[in-house]
Amino acid sequence: MSQDWLPVGPSQVKILDGFWKNWRELVGKVTLFHEYDQLQRQGHVDALQLDPKKHRGREEKDGWFWGGSIFWDSDLAKWLEAASARLENTADPDLEKLADDLIARLAASQQPDGYLNSHILTWRPGHRFKNLRDLHELYCAGHLIEAAVAHCEATGKKTLLNIAVKYADYIERTFGPGAGQLNGYCGHPEIELALIRLYRLTRDERYLKLTRFFVEQRGRQPHYYDQERINRLDLRPFRPGHPESPYAYMQAHKPVREQEKVVGHAVRAMYLLCAVADLAKELEDEGLRKTCQRLWDDVCQTKLYVTGGIGSAADNEGFTADFDLPNEKAYAETCASIGLFLFAHRMLHLDLRSCYADVMETALYNNILSGLGLDGKSFFYDNPLASRGKHHRVPWPWWCPCCPPNLARLILYLSRYLYSIRQDAIAVHHYVNSEVTFSVAGKPVRLRVESELPFGGRSKFTFENSAPFTLVLRQPSWASGISVRLNGKETTPELSNGYAILKRDWSSGDVLELEFGMPVIKQVARYEVESLRGRVAISRGPLVYCLEETDNGKNLDQLVLKTEAVLSPEMEAGLLGGVVVLQGDAERETVKGDGLYSTSPPTCRRAPIRAIPYYAWDNRAPGDMLVWMRSRGA
Amino acid sequence: MSQDWLPVGPSQVKILDGFWKNWRELVGKVTLFHEYDQLQRQGHVDALQLDPKKHRGREEKDGWFWGGSIFWDSDLAKWLEAASARLENTADPDLEKLADDLIARLAASQQPDGYLNSHILTWRPGHRFKNLRDLHELYCAGHLIEAAVAHCEATGKKTLLNIAVKYADYIERTFGPGAGQLNGYCGHPEIELALIRLYRLTRDERYLKLTRFFVEQRGRQPHYYDQERINRLDLRPFRPGHPESPYAYMQAHKPVREQEKVVGHAVRAMYLLCAVADLAKELEDEGLRKTCQRLWDDVCQTKLYVTGGIGSAADNEGFTADFDLPNEKAYAETCASIGLFLFAHRMLHLDLRSCYADVMETALYNNILSGLGLDGKSFFYDNPLASRGKHHRVPWPWWCPCCPPNLARLILYLSRYLYSIRQDAIAVHHYVNSEVTFSVAGKPVRLRVESELPFGGRSKFTFENSAPFTLVLRQPSWASGISVRLNGKETTPELSNGYAILKRDWSSGDVLELEFGMPVIKQVARYEVESLRGRVAISRGPLVYCLEETDNGKNLDQLVLKTEAVLSPEMEAGLLGGVVVLQGDAERETVKGDGLYSTSPPTCRRAPIRAIPYYAWDNRAPGDMLVWMRSRGA
Repeated sequence: MSQDWLPVGPSQVKILDGFWKNWRELVGKVTLFHEYDQLQRQGHVDALQLDPKKHRGREEKDGWFWGGSIFWDSDLAKWLEAASARLENTADPDLEKLADDLIARLAASQQPDGYLNSHILTWRPGHRFKNLRDLHELYCAGHLIEAAVAHCEATGKKTLLNIAVKYADYIERTFGPGAGQLNGYCGHPEIELALIRLYRLTRDERYLKLTRFFVEQRGRQPHYYDQERINRLDLRPFRPGHPESPYAYMQAHKPVREQEKVVGHAVRAMYLLCAVADLAKELEDEGLRKTCQRLWDDVCQTKLYVTGGIGSAADNEGFTADFDLPNEKAYAETCASIGLFLFAHRMLHLDLRSCYADVMETALYNNILSGLGLDGKSFFYDNPLASRGKHHRVPWPWWCPCCPPNLARLILYLSRYLYSIRQDAIAVHHYVNSEVTFSVAGKPVRLRVESELPFGGRSKFTFENSAPFTLVLRQPSWASGISVRLNGKETTPELSNGYAILKRDWSSGDVLELEFGMPVIKQVARYEVESLRGRVAISRGPLVYCLEETDNGKNLDQLVLKTEAVLSPEMEAGLLGGVVVLQGDAERETVKGDGLYSTSPPTCRRAPIRAIPYYAWDNRAPGDMLVWMRSRGA
Repeated sequence: MSQDWLPVGPSQVKILDGFWKNWRELVGKVTLFHEYDQLQRQGHVDALQLDPKKHRGREEKDGWFWGGSIFWDSDLAKWLEAASARLENTADPDLEKLADDLIARLAASQQPDGYLNSHILTWRPGHRFKNLRDLHELYCAGHLIEAAVAHCEATGKKTLLNIAVKYADYIERTFGPGAGQLNGYCGHPEIELALIRLYRLTRDERYLKLTRFFVEQRGRQPHYYDQERINRLDLRPFRPGHPESPYAYMQAHKPVREQEKVVGHAVRAMYLLCAVADLAKELEDEGLRKTCQRLWDDVCQTKLYVTGGIGSAADNEGFTADFDLPNEKAYAETCASIGLFLFAHRMLHLDLRSCYADVMETALYNNILSGLGLDGKSFFYDNPLASRGKHHRVPWPWWCPCCPPNLARLILYLSRYLYSIRQDAIAVHHYVNSEVTFSVAGKPVRLRVESELPFGGRSKFTFENSAPFTLVLRQPSWASGISVRLNGKETTPELSNGYAILKRDWSSGDVLELEFGMPVIKQVARYEVESLRGRVAISRGPLVYCLEETDNGKNLDQLVLKTEAVLSPEMEAGLLGGVVVLQGDAERETVKGDGLYSTSPPTCRRAPIRAIPYYAWDNRAPGDMLVWMRSRGA
């Protein structure tokens, strides 16, 4: 286990002009304020008054559901975490005021004992922690704790941290194996990874211990949820998750160490695995690490969309059978892909292998980024790989506004996920225009990175200090080759686990040029994936491409791409905020006549096609979309 | 309207040695006795004792449902109709004894007023005609009437006819628009076509009038089923059929004249349309004929499997959206295809066009015949177009044994569907080794037909009397050409509506040789059928072919057939009772590696394939099956 790598914190990374700076400015200036406005309009903020009378009626207008949902507090917390990320790098008094005001409201709603949950306190007083299976109390607490850590780290203020610590301490007293304690755990994992984050800030061992308790207790027999249900005399049926166990949906069908396959709700699975990986690292627990590895492999080998989406079914917002990856009906929730990104980041710090960063990259540039419209204020909740023109981003997924603030916090905290360090080395996972500052043997080092990613394969590293250290550079799986020039001179680095290793006594002014071959790639799926037989997905670099009706006409599935077809990249600066499109020739296959069946072979004629990056679809005229094109061999 | 064609009755047609004689002997000697045995074992026969105590308990053994179901009487009636068909041509004292005994039991169970229904009389006395929507009483009565007409025609006995007439008269008094009459109709159409059949035997106008009432009343507002439900204080929800109306399932969502699309339960739809077509013919009602035409077109243009199956969904045993024709999940119930066959036969007698006989033929040789195993005692209820090895015929579909006796009566009454006559002409729809006797201007004519169908395209007609008449010969849609030789001399007949017209003063000893080109055909589906894109179905003559794992190995969907691939027919006398197989080369496309996705193009290697007729599948080692092969253009 090479568990000594640690992420480089966001305060050490400054994102410079370019692709991601643009997105981050959009999110900082537009998305955050749009989201706050929507949260306020829907009633999330007022819900903190804990007064049923202050809640607007459920049918009040727009057909929205205005009553306080069980997860509303988490939406506010994720928004606060996103706002903290913005404030870490950018002074914005308006945003800061909104955040401070919201924190004050949270403080006012906190009970003397530390408990804080607007839904329970308003609508189900007396039901505190009586239905851990369904009511998301600890899930909301987890997001509050995450926001508090982020807020403290970003602003230095302890206003939110104090609230979170008080609540965490209450939870720590309430839950555990002791007499008089509840030995249950939340139906929606989140508190576990939050408590580890709080532990890493405070080094208070109680939080680590509680995480361990929650993780180890989950899924044991006699089952807590069975007991809990009897205790509250609840005989109603509840949402079934999996043939194996109704609790698979809640990731509580069996102890995580015994799990061989990932099942149930995709976001819950990923959040739990984040905590398991964190715990494996903190405790150096090889059993937990192997569990993570096994379940990671299961996801990647049987359940991962080419876009980095996971959880193919809407029914359980989660996993189904191996290789069941429908295109048009793909659920592939934005939050699930974010969860996968977060899990992959943890895996990277258990074992530095490029495959984890590859998945992070695929998810980020495709399934995650597609979640946000180019206007910064429209969102996909689910991210299908084909559309017959009816799937569009919405200004607010009012039925469950989990994805918008999750997107905002991920993009604004992107700086957290680019680099890792250990003693005398820095690893670069993702090539983003940025400046990173770290120290080697007490000496500060500043490294400037310029990159053409995601549209070009060249990156340039400029060293602003002199120091001996190892530069570890990920070679993406899509790269057809790697070329490294140090101060203009070709050099051949050693490769290890998908990373190029460059050990040197770097001098101020050194320039390292890195170039990855970035061909257009046609991916095919293994036979077992019925929905993808005879089809190819086109990608270039980290970007998966798709066809849209507005470029290619109707009936996209008439287009057949020959195996040997050449598609040429071309930057179109004026299109969709500036994207590289792929252009070339396919064939349009049509069947003669109006009959249901025909005995004439289909007619094929040349059809020029233009593919755009998947993340950018549905930003122009509404219409059909297709990722997996039909293909034909020579 | 050319409504003057009439079917040639079964007593005028003798099936001679060959393909169908073999099947009919199997059904007559094996299937009928197997079915009677199963009906008796399951309790159908004992149910006629009307004594709950005589019913074996529901859980008694084999997990079978032994209590008397609402439709059990209809299974017995269909069996009696099939037995009658057998007795019409073949003396079989054992069979006759079984039939007579069953008729005696039916007579004993008939009430003094004529009512007869084992389910209601045993389990719900007092509920007579109180739930027409669900309880199938008139459906059972309809099959009883059909059996009675058949039995009288076949044997000359009136034992069953007397029972049926007494019941029909009771129904005729009970239902109608008059004061004190019930103005409802059965949730499962059948009585309508049965009453017309009784009318055609008896020429009693009351039965025609009642059919008309049932057909015209169906689906009107205020809705009878709404009223009926209120009357019996039944507030339970019931099986919904269609977004448009819950009564679509029962073919009662709107009056049939107003229907534009076929919806709901497929068998119910077909049985109703049979009666509508019969009524259109008897009443010369152009509105009803147009209704039939419109709904026929809808089925054929949007909802028909290439095998002649209809009703793609198990959920409602019926129709879904246009072009929704899944392969592996196809329901395509055997009885639904029989219903389509019967409806097509009616359409043919409203307007003699070969398209109707084409559909009869496709259904008969594929979706219907596949319903029966080569052992004569195993049955498919549903007939999918692809299987992953789990779909097998069962000795008895105990949950609903409707298909086995329906198959038996169709095959044993096949002679009813081959020929039609009018004043001075005879039409041949299906080429089957047989001798047909009819009269022209009072003179008896005997015509002997020998045919290679379904495995060869040649047929020969030998005239055994001299008479002037027109011979009308269907040219099947699959025929690439037609060649006619009269007494050895090539002749070119006029073609009209898909039939060749040969008018002549025929002499005894005349020989007409007919040959249809019978190439291997690759059918493709229109673009809208998503499940069939990039796929071909192979057929030759009336037979649709399929691949089985036992001939072609596992993973049949790896096989890709080139558009120009040549498949050669070869008769294998020892295989599956003697079938022509199609052999040639496809390519087996495989994807490298064990990963979910690969960037290497698929590898193709030559793979010899052997296809067998669809009807004969699942008669050897269990395994995968596929009708629609992947295909690839030049």
